[in-house]
Amino acid sequence: MTDFNEAMSATAEAVSEVLDDILEQTEGPENRLLEAMRYSALGGGKRIRPFLVVASADLFGVARASSLRTAAAIEMIHCYSLIHDDLPAMDDDDLRRGRPTAHIKFDEATAILAGDALLTKAFEVLASAETHSNGEVRADLCLAYAKAAGDRGMVGGQMLDIVAEGHDVDVPEITRLQRMKTGALISVSCESGAILGRASASARTALRGYAHDIGLAFQIADDLLDVEGTAEEVGKATGKDEAAGKATFVSLLGADRAREQANMLVEQAVDQLNFFGDKAELLQELARFIVNRRS
Amino acid sequence: MTDFNEAMSATAEAVSEVLDDILEQTEGPENRLLEAMRYSALGGGKRIRPFLVVASADLFGVARASSLRTAAAIEMIHCYSLIHDDLPAMDDDDLRRGRPTAHIKFDEATAILAGDALLTKAFEVLASAETHSNGEVRADLCLAYAKAAGDRGMVGGQMLDIVAEGHDVDVPEITRLQRMKTGALISVSCESGAILGRASASARTALRGYAHDIGLAFQIADDLLDVEGTAEEVGKATGKDEAAGKATFVSLLGADRAREQANMLVEQAVDQLNFFGDKAELLQELARFIVNRRS
Repeated sequence: MTDFNEAMSATAEAVSEVLDDILEQTEGPENRLLEAMRYSALGGGKRIRPFLVVASADLFGVARASSLRTAAAIEMIHCYSLIHDDLPAMDDDDLRRGRPTAHIKFDEATAILAGDALLTKAFEVLASAETHSNGEVRADLCLAYAKAAGDRGMVGGQMLDIVAEGHDVDVPEITRLQRMKTGALISVSCESGAILGRASASARTALRGYAHDIGLAFQIADDLLDVEGTAEEVGKATGKDEAAGKATFVSLLGADRAREQANMLVEQAVDQLNFFGDKAELLQELARFIVNRRS
Repeated sequence: MTDFNEAMSATAEAVSEVLDDILEQTEGPENRLLEAMRYSALGGGKRIRPFLVVASADLFGVARASSLRTAAAIEMIHCYSLIHDDLPAMDDDDLRRGRPTAHIKFDEATAILAGDALLTKAFEVLASAETHSNGEVRADLCLAYAKAAGDRGMVGGQMLDIVAEGHDVDVPEITRLQRMKTGALISVSCESGAILGRASASARTALRGYAHDIGLAFQIADDLLDVEGTAEEVGKATGKDEAAGKATFVSLLGADRAREQANMLVEQAVDQLNFFGDKAELLQELARFIVNRRS
């Protein structure tokens, strides 16, 4: 195993432990809610966003206890968005990470509430003194996460995605949509390292540029996987975008040009991090991993 | 109009203005999301929770700009919970505040996303420097609201409510359920005044006791309205609990004892506020209003 792969699994494991701790199960009838929250948040996944939080926080020597709790918060927001995205009224997906989606495993009402509760829990964790001793930092984290996840970020992007189904979309439009839908959460993952570490403006700018590029590369890679991967590899239904006649980077650019574009974005992202010297190696490898993964 | 009624409408109007400002509409396809958020957040309502925030903050001389933004945040959380509660998979309600519910007016996907976005926006507002200059206060607000709205508060109570449909419920169980489902948000409304005003421990205790009692009284009054009110008065379908065979304070205690109980809670709540002397008159009148309202 390379250092990068080792770092990825170590972070994934550490974040799962923190999530296990945060989502402590209680006895009693409300247990069903925690069970559904745990089912979604502890059901595997590559934990790319948590890795971004921890690796970017490491650039500034942030204590692991702080960055891991922040990483748990971003993962809870990501998992909530998956639960709601999978609902019958939305994408109507039955399979996620190789397992039944939350509304199939439980029921629709429980899935809606588990998503709501995970989103809310993320802010509870970010605002808690256990995450950072400084109130300004905690408030800054809450603000950045709310902006990234809200109507001008992830949820706004999901709305755009639904509205886009009804008409032809071009590359600038899909770029904007994806920057909101998936890019905003990836960006704020990197930004949280800078917030936790009270980084300089120039360090923030470098990280922001990196995040901007890998966010889009990540989405293009996802679109390629939807076309080229099998459900077994990817852990969810593939070929769905094409079947739904949905515009993606691949349908608009073709697979070859889409791949070129993703590779170019990754090289650009890697360059932005030269600002940090050798310390940024893991983040640079992550950028390459994002376009080369098979799931 | 009495001073109390005047204060209620003045606060409702001021909060609506702040909400109108926060939920600023933009041009473009994502406008649909803002439209649905505005439909729900600006669609009337008594604004009881915002009133509690502003009136409790007034006890400590908090600037109106701070308390009104905090009040807008609690109202957005309340409105998000109504949107999701009304969904077909949940209570499946078509009518709310005398108008079609969000998923009827728009569609289910838009309603889910509008709820998600309102919850997220609430934290954006609480964490923003415009709401309070002190980061510790902003983080404390985020923490208190997340706890009140999350798995051990409102959402946990909604889950309990769903689980309770399958079996017989007794008074202690329904009390616990309602303290989570509606009580937690009412409590945190009062608590936010204390957080914004950095109140003493004894002032917080008095407010907490008041909130605890009016929260339950409010729910009992709601149950009574469901039995005794007409849809026209109440602005939503009535008689639903009975038709669904759902246990309520009224079905368990009978209307007379339920009313007695509510009145006793209100008197208790009023007494707790004697701590603050004359300054707490509006909050005391609100407690009485809660059990005497017709909608």
